Amino acid sequence: MENFINVAPYFVLAAAIIGLFFAGYKFFWVKGKPEGTEQMANIASKIRKGAMAYLKRQYKTVAIFFACMLVILAVMAGLGLLTWFVPFAFLSGGFFSGLSGFIGMKIATYANSRTANGAREGLNKGLKIAFSSGTVMGLTVVGLGLLDISVWYIILRAMLGNDANAIMGAMLTFGMGASSMALFARVGGGIFTKAADVGADLVGKVEAGIPEDDPRNPAVIADNVGDNVGDVAGMGADLYESYVGSIISAGALAAAAGLGFGGIVVPMLIAAIGIISSIIGTFFVSTKEGATQKNLLASLRRGTYISSILAAVASGILIYAILPEHTGVFWAVISGLLAGVLIGFFTEYYTSDSYNPTRKLSGSSETGSATIIIDGLALGMNSTAIPVIIVAISVLISYFVSGGAGSFALGLYGVGISAVGMLSTLGITLATDAYGPVADNAGGIAEMAGLEETVRERTDALDSLGNTTAATGKGFAIGSAALTALALIVSYTDKVTGLGGTLDLGLTQPAVLIGLFVGAMLPFLFSAYTMQAVGRAAQKVVVEVRRQFKDVPGLMEGKADADYETCVDICTRSSLREMILPAALGIIAPIVVGLVLGVNGVVGMLAGALVSGFVIAVMMANSGGAWDNAKKYIEAGNFGGKGSENHKAAVVGDTVGDPFKDTAGPSVNILIKLLTMVSIVFAGLVVKFNLVDFLTNLVK
Amino acid sequence: MENFINVAPYFVLAAAIIGLFFAGYKFFWVKGKPEGTEQMANIASKIRKGAMAYLKRQYKTVAIFFACMLVILAVMAGLGLLTWFVPFAFLSGGFFSGLSGFIGMKIATYANSRTANGAREGLNKGLKIAFSSGTVMGLTVVGLGLLDISVWYIILRAMLGNDANAIMGAMLTFGMGASSMALFARVGGGIFTKAADVGADLVGKVEAGIPEDDPRNPAVIADNVGDNVGDVAGMGADLYESYVGSIISAGALAAAAGLGFGGIVVPMLIAAIGIISSIIGTFFVSTKEGATQKNLLASLRRGTYISSILAAVASGILIYAILPEHTGVFWAVISGLLAGVLIGFFTEYYTSDSYNPTRKLSGSSETGSATIIIDGLALGMNSTAIPVIIVAISVLISYFVSGGAGSFALGLYGVGISAVGMLSTLGITLATDAYGPVADNAGGIAEMAGLEETVRERTDALDSLGNTTAATGKGFAIGSAALTALALIVSYTDKVTGLGGTLDLGLTQPAVLIGLFVGAMLPFLFSAYTMQAVGRAAQKVVVEVRRQFKDVPGLMEGKADADYETCVDICTRSSLREMILPAALGIIAPIVVGLVLGVNGVVGMLAGALVSGFVIAVMMANSGGAWDNAKKYIEAGNFGGKGSENHKAAVVGDTVGDPFKDTAGPSVNILIKLLTMVSIVFAGLVVKFNLVDFLTNLVK
Repeated sequence: MENFINVAPYFVLAAAIIGLFFAGYKFFWVKGKPEGTEQMANIASKIRKGAMAYLKRQYKTVAIFFACMLVILAVMAGLGLLTWFVPFAFLSGGFFSGLSGFIGMKIATYANSRTANGAREGLNKGLKIAFSSGTVMGLTVVGLGLLDISVWYIILRAMLGNDANAIMGAMLTFGMGASSMALFARVGGGIFTKAADVGADLVGKVEAGIPEDDPRNPAVIADNVGDNVGDVAGMGADLYESYVGSIISAGALAAAAGLGFGGIVVPMLIAAIGIISSIIGTFFVSTKEGATQKNLLASLRRGTYISSILAAVASGILIYAILPEHTGVFWAVISGLLAGVLIGFFTEYYTSDSYNPTRKLSGSSETGSATIIIDGLALGMNSTAIPVIIVAISVLISYFVSGGAGSFALGLYGVGISAVGMLSTLGITLATDAYGPVADNAGGIAEMAGLEETVRERTDALDSLGNTTAATGKGFAIGSAALTALALIVSYTDKVTGLGGTLDLGLTQPAVLIGLFVGAMLPFLFSAYTMQAVGRAAQKVVVEVRRQFKDVPGLMEGKADADYETCVDICTRSSLREMILPAALGIIAPIVVGLVLGVNGVVGMLAGALVSGFVIAVMMANSGGAWDNAKKYIEAGNFGGKGSENHKAAVVGDTVGDPFKDTAGPSVNILIKLLTMVSIVFAGLVVKFNLVDFLTNLVK
Repeated sequence: MENFINVAPYFVLAAAIIGLFFAGYKFFWVKGKPEGTEQMANIASKIRKGAMAYLKRQYKTVAIFFACMLVILAVMAGLGLLTWFVPFAFLSGGFFSGLSGFIGMKIATYANSRTANGAREGLNKGLKIAFSSGTVMGLTVVGLGLLDISVWYIILRAMLGNDANAIMGAMLTFGMGASSMALFARVGGGIFTKAADVGADLVGKVEAGIPEDDPRNPAVIADNVGDNVGDVAGMGADLYESYVGSIISAGALAAAAGLGFGGIVVPMLIAAIGIISSIIGTFFVSTKEGATQKNLLASLRRGTYISSILAAVASGILIYAILPEHTGVFWAVISGLLAGVLIGFFTEYYTSDSYNPTRKLSGSSETGSATIIIDGLALGMNSTAIPVIIVAISVLISYFVSGGAGSFALGLYGVGISAVGMLSTLGITLATDAYGPVADNAGGIAEMAGLEETVRERTDALDSLGNTTAATGKGFAIGSAALTALALIVSYTDKVTGLGGTLDLGLTQPAVLIGLFVGAMLPFLFSAYTMQAVGRAAQKVVVEVRRQFKDVPGLMEGKADADYETCVDICTRSSLREMILPAALGIIAPIVVGLVLGVNGVVGMLAGALVSGFVIAVMMANSGGAWDNAKKYIEAGNFGGKGSENHKAAVVGDTVGDPFKDTAGPSVNILIKLLTMVSIVFAGLVVKFNLVDFLTNLVK
């Protein structure tokens, strides 16, 4: 067994490479499909160029930040506060997180026109292309994640030998790079997409009365670019970070629990198994022509269920082989998987118009926009209870089945493993999630290129299905964020103890309590920043679109082309400027809190941010999702249908929900983890100096 | 000194009686003023009858709850899980909290027409009457509070002798009665007032286009009744609970810190000093005819400042005399007072249209209701940062100046004392707060009775001033809730230790973390319940008002009277039905969490609810206040003025803000404390049995 544990990292590396190869194969398969008419290719090229231009400038901006952080980390390493691995690990985490987003967006912007063209031939053809592009994204994220992890692990084991704690301590730090990159990508992309969307809708749909995706709207390309940079590139970087974070934090907890390298490789191997299972699962996703929405969903679910069952069975065998004395850990994997599925189901329950809550919300439009807003906020708040209870039960189960009653550290390892279990089949769950924006874009292209009605109907069927799978995806993203952050907080305390710091985490300690207060407030402040940023950026788009409608002769009659590039440029510039402040909050807050309140205050802050951030993220996602679908439910002919006063009220709800569900909500998940990562990296500094300890010693 | 400490409770009792006598004197002074024209008396009588009818039925409903709780508590006492004092203490807390609300409302419903009549003669006359009625309320709350405390303390000392811990332990439990009553009063009153307000506005102002307070609107009396049962009776019960809670929790912390009876009487004596200072302060509140808004504010501020300075100086002398070795505690009093003032100032900064945030929010109306909602939510979220930091600094200061560096328990006593300091001059700060709804009602009566324009202008001046002082009042209510809840959590841990339970409050303990998650979610779930309740109740009012406009011939022409009673009755019935669920949540949650997670989980839950509840309460209060004033700013002629599209957008914001600031927000403050009180009372049960301990022992 010892031998297997030693070679295991190479298996993990092999699985990562297989995943990447499969992604590469799918990439070229999609790229080899015809793009359709010249006009379609033309529109797609505009979207692709806009998206790439944004991403390039985003990377430039972020590069400045990474350079500054590198200098700081290098100085700290020079002062002996960090090891020299940290700056490099930080860089690699950021690089791969960014690369995941880049590749995901590359394929998405190739796949959109091809999906539209496929949909001209039939639904199954469209689904195949869109889902394949999702697969590229999903397997790129997990492949790059495991590549980074296994290579670092192999290097560190070669250099640091058998000191499991030192190895995992060093590995934790590349999570900070991944989290920083993810936060920039999510916030920047989120601001871009919503500024373009709100701007295009407010002037185009509401003021000028032209339909969505109408080529006369100068912001229409920016809107489609936004889907790619926000929902694709942002999500890719985000889930890369969750995935990597869960695996390394579980590894760190294994080291702390004294499980040795066997315990450390288990989460990596579970992830490796998940990659192979995901690849197998993708072969089961296809449908017949004339398939209903139900068939489509069943086909996607078949893929994920097969992957999950394969991964669960293989993980069980693995745990029985490597950790024969801790087989209960297997049930932690199962509890994580189930928790993800259940949170996903309840996300769907609260936000889909197939269920009561969203239907009732549509009805609130009858007394105007104020009541639909109040009820939507209440719906979101209400919907936080069940996910919290699911996470609570899952943590309790994972803790106890892994032996928490006997050993605290073992129980926490179980909690870490349950997060890995939840994310193990990310390859395929992300594929079912990421294909949504591609279908959405394909619909836009079909509209702009004036394709026949049936094409749009087919892309709409794919898109609407995407909303359901996205709900499940959100359940996994949010549930795993909670469990991973929890595991990371424990890793932080281990790190502090390792650095010779002393912890007194009693909840009635003033530093802990104050940290808790500050932490609970941070997600609110962060959300305020991002929401205000969307408002300011959208304002600029509104002004520009109004200007073009007024100044460009023949635009409204369809005789002249709109100046799409300017809108894309405005969105790019404002979203890059606006992403700085919220991201800075995530990096500066833990350092300041640490220097003032000390390590106990930091743990308080992390716990406060975790719990309040989790609740507010669920609330925002579900309020936003429900408003969106309540509007669609009215558009489907209920409560007065499209164009009625009720519909107008529902549009207000949907607009309020946009920055909730696509900017602030998903970014809060990353914020929670970034706070922890930064705290871990700066632990050495805080242990050496902080105001509260200083004052306490002074008074004594 | 020992002698003084023994007779001190009688001084406290004397101060309470002086306060009540002064309140009684003011009561009859106000009642002796003329009511004005027959029509005015008639309208006032309708409001009074509606309010009293509501209150009677509310007490009946609550009585059922109290009877059930009494049985439960008696059974627990019979089983030896509680002492026999608890059921009676519980009852007395509930009774006096209810009585505070009742008397406050009684005087408010006498003072409204008299204020309107006074305003016919001049501004100063109106101010005197309105402020005197506020004084009745303020001094009744503090007088009854100290009466309850001092009498119980005298009885318990006589019966339990020198066991300080046992005495304070028993006293803590009457806080649960006060909190339960307060929650019912706040939630029920809050639902009533907003259902009537929203219902009256939606049909009257928006659909029928008649002005506010127009006698043709069938919901107009219900609206005015609502101001009394929500803003007066609800607030009275609420602040009674805060006041009593802060004093007894500080006393309990004194016992835990080993400061003996000297430490216990200090918070009571500070409160007693506060009563006398408040009475003196009231004599400085008056203004000249033709006074500007600024003069009026200065006059009110003069009263509160003089009271605060007197209270601070006298508290200093007292602490030097009784606790000569812990004189640092004095600075905790000062830090509490300052924190209250500062939070109040920033509440005003974020919500008053004299400052930038609210003015900018008015501007957001230019792009429609969606943007003003997004920006208002963002403003509220943004505004949570400063109060959190103020509370954090105040806790740190109170802790360290009281000797926290040397003794943990002493530091926490300081935190408890700072809450007492913040609320010491509640007699006068509540007077400046409670007079607002009276002025508001006076304006309504002036309108309905068709008095000359100048009268309405004067009552408007008084009312608008009331909004500013209410902001300060909110700062005190919310700041003291945080500090008191914090002190109560510490008292809970002492109680558990006293019961032989063992605590392990490390933040990384699963039970603590899960408790924290559940706790952070509770204020969200509670807010969802209350907001949805307002929606449902308002819906019923809308239907009834529409029916009357349609069915009552001659109503719109002013030839027939509207059926006001039916609207009052609808509001009464729905608010009483709807208050059950949120209140039940506050009582059941801590018991269930306790039975599942044990005492560590309970502390986690309390801390989670405290921090997330504080943040969400600030956010809701400030978003709501800012929307309200942004609308008023537009009505004052900015951004298009009244009737413009911008104004319509701002009205939507204001309507969303109503349940935020007047129902959910203020109730969350009480929820936080009720959770703690219930936990304290049921601690004996939870220590004896809970699932997590059971499982842990089983596995071991």
